[in-house]
Amino acid sequence: MPIYKAPVDDALFLLNDVFHIEHYGNLPGFSDASPDVVEAVLREAAKFSEEVLTPLNRVGDKEGCKRAADGSVTTPKGFKDAYKQIVEGGWIGISVPADFGGQGLPATMTVMVNEFFCSANMAFAMYPGLTQGAIAALLVHASDALKAKYLPKMVEGAWTGTMNLTEPHCGTDLGLLRSKAVKQADGSYKVSGTKIFISAGEHDLSQNIIHLVLARIEGAPAGTKGISLFVVPKIMVNDDGSLGAPNAVSCGSIEEKMGIHGNSTCVMNYDGAIGWLIGEENRGLNAMFTMMNEARLGVGVQGLALSEVAYQNAAAYAKERLQGRSISGVKYPDKAADPIIVHPDVRRALMSMRAFNEAARALVMWTALKSDVAHRSDDQKERTSADDHMGLLTPVIKGVLTDGGFANAVMAQQIFGGHGYIAEHGMEQFVRDARIAQIYEGANGIQALDLVGRKLGKDGGRAIMAFFNEVQTYLKERADSDAMNVYLKPLGQSLAHLQQASMWFMQNAMAKPDNAGAGSYDYMHLFGLVALGYMWCKIAEAALAKLPKANGSAAVLNAKLVTARFFMERMLPETATRLARIQAGAASTMELPDDAF
Amino acid sequence: MPIYKAPVDDALFLLNDVFHIEHYGNLPGFSDASPDVVEAVLREAAKFSEEVLTPLNRVGDKEGCKRAADGSVTTPKGFKDAYKQIVEGGWIGISVPADFGGQGLPATMTVMVNEFFCSANMAFAMYPGLTQGAIAALLVHASDALKAKYLPKMVEGAWTGTMNLTEPHCGTDLGLLRSKAVKQADGSYKVSGTKIFISAGEHDLSQNIIHLVLARIEGAPAGTKGISLFVVPKIMVNDDGSLGAPNAVSCGSIEEKMGIHGNSTCVMNYDGAIGWLIGEENRGLNAMFTMMNEARLGVGVQGLALSEVAYQNAAAYAKERLQGRSISGVKYPDKAADPIIVHPDVRRALMSMRAFNEAARALVMWTALKSDVAHRSDDQKERTSADDHMGLLTPVIKGVLTDGGFANAVMAQQIFGGHGYIAEHGMEQFVRDARIAQIYEGANGIQALDLVGRKLGKDGGRAIMAFFNEVQTYLKERADSDAMNVYLKPLGQSLAHLQQASMWFMQNAMAKPDNAGAGSYDYMHLFGLVALGYMWCKIAEAALAKLPKANGSAAVLNAKLVTARFFMERMLPETATRLARIQAGAASTMELPDDAF
Repeated sequence: MPIYKAPVDDALFLLNDVFHIEHYGNLPGFSDASPDVVEAVLREAAKFSEEVLTPLNRVGDKEGCKRAADGSVTTPKGFKDAYKQIVEGGWIGISVPADFGGQGLPATMTVMVNEFFCSANMAFAMYPGLTQGAIAALLVHASDALKAKYLPKMVEGAWTGTMNLTEPHCGTDLGLLRSKAVKQADGSYKVSGTKIFISAGEHDLSQNIIHLVLARIEGAPAGTKGISLFVVPKIMVNDDGSLGAPNAVSCGSIEEKMGIHGNSTCVMNYDGAIGWLIGEENRGLNAMFTMMNEARLGVGVQGLALSEVAYQNAAAYAKERLQGRSISGVKYPDKAADPIIVHPDVRRALMSMRAFNEAARALVMWTALKSDVAHRSDDQKERTSADDHMGLLTPVIKGVLTDGGFANAVMAQQIFGGHGYIAEHGMEQFVRDARIAQIYEGANGIQALDLVGRKLGKDGGRAIMAFFNEVQTYLKERADSDAMNVYLKPLGQSLAHLQQASMWFMQNAMAKPDNAGAGSYDYMHLFGLVALGYMWCKIAEAALAKLPKANGSAAVLNAKLVTARFFMERMLPETATRLARIQAGAASTMELPDDAF
Repeated sequence: MPIYKAPVDDALFLLNDVFHIEHYGNLPGFSDASPDVVEAVLREAAKFSEEVLTPLNRVGDKEGCKRAADGSVTTPKGFKDAYKQIVEGGWIGISVPADFGGQGLPATMTVMVNEFFCSANMAFAMYPGLTQGAIAALLVHASDALKAKYLPKMVEGAWTGTMNLTEPHCGTDLGLLRSKAVKQADGSYKVSGTKIFISAGEHDLSQNIIHLVLARIEGAPAGTKGISLFVVPKIMVNDDGSLGAPNAVSCGSIEEKMGIHGNSTCVMNYDGAIGWLIGEENRGLNAMFTMMNEARLGVGVQGLALSEVAYQNAAAYAKERLQGRSISGVKYPDKAADPIIVHPDVRRALMSMRAFNEAARALVMWTALKSDVAHRSDDQKERTSADDHMGLLTPVIKGVLTDGGFANAVMAQQIFGGHGYIAEHGMEQFVRDARIAQIYEGANGIQALDLVGRKLGKDGGRAIMAFFNEVQTYLKERADSDAMNVYLKPLGQSLAHLQQASMWFMQNAMAKPDNAGAGSYDYMHLFGLVALGYMWCKIAEAALAKLPKANGSAAVLNAKLVTARFFMERMLPETATRLARIQAGAASTMELPDDAF
């Protein structure tokens, strides 16, 4: 059975020593997030993740969800009980305004807690996670009446939420959407159509399921400009809040898929189901987009979460599995063989994973804090700047952290050798589960296009210029620090690569957009490496500052410095290759006729 | 259901135009391999792969193998029938000497045929594939009596073979092996122990199963020097060749694993099973090692095979799936959207896969031909040189082609978006199946160590110097060719990177072996890139030579040139990053104490 220990101390180090959460004290909710409260919440989330969710991870994979002939779906053994504890703990609403039953704490807290939940049991964590997504959409776009009707129960967790976008013939290109909505005399709509890949579409965890559904109102324009968003409850809700008759929506089947078996991925059939418009007619995509940054950040966190738990299991196995002897001389003469952690190639893999994880966690936290600023600050300039950051970094986090999460799950599995390929240790499940995060919520190729095609040029390049400026200023201000030089110099080189790549797009992609498309994926990863490198500089700086007064934490802080060096020496140099690929342009990529493939 | 079309024409182009099989006409068996025969064999193998094995691939995955309470194992529906056709076609023995019932054709033919079989159905192809491995071991090391008793039936396919190395506590480090053998008065041995991860260990395809088992003879030295190899039949074979009583060997369970479900991966229990020594006492590892190059080459072929079939399916889907519009303007105005192959990022993925596949196939064929020379030439110098090549290139092929095979299966799956994550299209199966090839037959980290730790320095570096010399001479002789310059220049740069990395090891790894271990994985991939780049030069040269007289094949030859350029521009630049990582040395990799992980 896989092990998991939530990285509470690392999260606290980042919050307190790297990002100085106390500087955010003026934002609503942050004054409640005193150091004591933050630590208590994280320790409680850790305990629940380690003791309740982790043991259910393999169970969920093995049993999966089962659909009965009547369309009802049963979740794996133990999920119902665990979900009850989610409700009792109030976990869904920790960052939701108190008006709707939440605790109003920073959204950053939810992001951190969700990392733990996902590491322990990604398939399970999606049930509350999707509910949080639906809550976010309703909060921003729904009428007060709809909010009052649905939010409190969703925040409590008594009802869960879903997102219904994809149809068999359209996923990325929602303009092709066919589901339709017909307006009724009472202002409601009858929604009809088939939606696929609907996570948590039907299950037995909650009393009701609130579906958010994209559909086209009769007579609406074709394409993306004729799409509206509806709230469609599984069971009708009476005016007094009690549950009424079932709505005309049902689960047609459960998808047979590669992983996240504990989550029910459904084909949902809407057959004149009654729904209500969220926001304005034909502005459904807009409503979806405003919550997309948070949702994509959440998927990036899944990548980090699986990388972290896979790493922990690989590290434990590497210390325990005896095989061969160190090439630099026997290290454990009392044992039949040395544990495989003595082998440099095993170390290389472990160091690569931790160098990714710790910086990725920082990148997530930095951006989550920006999200709090963007939503809660009363300073317009600060809000805009934070929003720019979110827009720019979100596709990077989604794409790079999920690619890295999958690659690291594979790397961790490799450390187990043949034992990683069989189900017993749970390593192959991490690989299968991690894979979906690269695909859903906008496949990673779409993230790269979003970054290069939309975010770079937006507002005259304001966001990317601000990012460059921040990192450059950071480097300049520390140029005289001998202790930091070993981290700053490589970052400076890689930042230059990113700047050259950006410049290359400006000069070569206007006339020939294919040059941007062909280089977008490499650009996303080049950006990710620079962002992670920047995080390592900040982490190293905080560690150096804390070391003189370290009480027993010196080993942890020193490990940060070594890992930062590893990142700079071993991982950051990849930016050169990424730049070379981008500068190669689109010619050889696009030259062959379609039928040559 | 996945599609598959065996790349017969590409194989013939490589054999005839790139590697000029006619130059090998002096080797035994090659005179029989006339162009007509070669093409006929390949077309027959293609037909069988496409029509019989491909439709069984998803069936095998879905049904898996089932073990009954009596230890017998049932293979998936259709496997028995397909296996009967393997026997009838004489596929197992096409390269085995006629003395034992084979056809004596070049081993290169078997390698090519096996690529097709593995693309179509890897789990199935392992049954005949493992039998070929066992045959190879018996051919070289067994006594004439054992050969006469077992080989004809195995070559025919009436009996299959297995390899029993791994035990629960030892895989890579066979010195820890515990299975034991006790000599009997009649010269036989009683073999006892538990073996795990035994592919095709028990099944219903053949009348008998011939296990090759590593065990320690009572009183033998500890470690690797006390291991012997035994042949242990599932059912005893009488002197007249008829089958006798069951031997004391049984399948204890079938492993629950990530993929290759159609192949039975067994825990095998030997409980005083009667076996016979193959080769000399305590020289069992030696006997295994002589067949290791072929076995590892075969696993490398699995990587290529899965990359090829995954690519084919992704290309077909990309031409068919309508989603979005080209960023350079609508390409298919008559359709609701453009097929996704118009998008540069989808192209990038498709081109990356084919640039890998076509060069990987060349690398495999080049090395398979060397294997034929090493085994069949009567010129000692030629044999030694071919053997050097095999030793050097085998770990590269195994490691790089299986890493690439997996990465490309993932890349192909990504093109399907959410549809790749569900079982229907078979893409996630390719990913799960491809994963094992990176692990078994020596995990890829072990291949890297074999390359850097053993092969580089062997015989004073004779093999690597010969490789450098060959590529350098090739480059020099063509230095004036304008047409080739676009391919030669990047190869020259990357060759220099490889030479610098080799030099760095010479200067830095003697005193500190960790420097070799920490850089070994990157070195293996650096080597692989150079080898694939060299193959692309040879392919491009052959295409250029053939173009003037191309009859209808101009499009295919032009596609080769474009793909070669893509490889040079987009994939080969990675060598710079690999070199940088190697030159970073082991310091930050090894600095942390074990308990910091």
